[in-house]
Amino acid sequence: MDIERRSGCPINLSMEVVGDRWSLVVIRDMMFGNRRHFRDLLTRSHEGIASNILASRLKRLKALGLITRMDDPSHAQKAIYSLAEPAIALVPVLAMLGAWGRRFLPVTEELSIRAQLLEEGGPALWEDFMRDLRVLHIEDPIGGANGTRKSPVLARLTQAYLDVRARKAGG
Amino acid sequence: MDIERRSGCPINLSMEVVGDRWSLVVIRDMMFGNRRHFRDLLTRSHEGIASNILASRLKRLKALGLITRMDDPSHAQKAIYSLAEPAIALVPVLAMLGAWGRRFLPVTEELSIRAQLLEEGGPALWEDFMRDLRVLHIEDPIGGANGTRKSPVLARLTQAYLDVRARKAGG
Repeated sequence: MDIERRSGCPINLSMEVVGDRWSLVVIRDMMFGNRRHFRDLLTRSHEGIASNILASRLKRLKALGLITRMDDPSHAQKAIYSLAEPAIALVPVLAMLGAWGRRFLPVTEELSIRAQLLEEGGPALWEDFMRDLRVLHIEDPIGGANGTRKSPVLARLTQAYLDVRARKAGG
Repeated sequence: MDIERRSGCPINLSMEVVGDRWSLVVIRDMMFGNRRHFRDLLTRSHEGIASNILASRLKRLKALGLITRMDDPSHAQKAIYSLAEPAIALVPVLAMLGAWGRRFLPVTEELSIRAQLLEEGGPALWEDFMRDLRVLHIEDPIGGANGTRKSPVLARLTQAYLDVRARKAGG
């Protein structure tokens, strides 16, 4: 699949690839939520993505080389979606975008604690997270999807999110 | 103007604000090209933005508080567009997005030298650039638009771009 390529500017080309309402949100859910099956991406979406939009975005991201799709050996009818290197390399972009959103937009504490930790951790944490993501998505996508492979960084981000959610529910 | 706010996630909210094909490209042209009049943004666009799309994006960015619009005292019929603080604060996002585009997409040398310098300069250069942009767009928008106020960082980025363009034309 080719992008439109109206100019050779890196910002323009990047927006041709991920500059739509949903692509980065789908990548975010695969990256931070480790959602690797279509049904998980659909039913656990905080933004309520529609089924046909999710299907079209997954197809497009696969055609552009940002994600891969393989059969799940333990569920004949299911596919496992994984991040490819170009999507994993978006971690610094998502960290900066999340930091910007936290500063200027009406975010909730529950859904921004992970962005806060990523911002505070800086480039060293982003590198650790990308190394973990390569294990879960590229080296061992099946183990990454079924939970036998773990990411220390993702576990820490997820725990922080669950802690805020529990505190909010209890308070 | 309100954004849709499907969730309080900073990445989702950021994409609701700048996650369309053109908004970041318009901000890029104001930021790196110092294009401050509608006609400049329209006719010097490398991507050939359509007039109605440019008008709608400027209106939307103004309603969202990312840009401001004032009468140009030297041209009765013209308006000066300037970046507001939330748009200036996108410099780190654009730097990371440009770095990502340079790595994975078919950029041209001419249109990516500024992204390269921004990436290499890191956070210290981004801070300097944002300080300059505040002078050109917020403290003295008229002087910034008519060229009596200058930005050392922008001058350096622009010269690097012109050097590559001249070399390409000569070679």
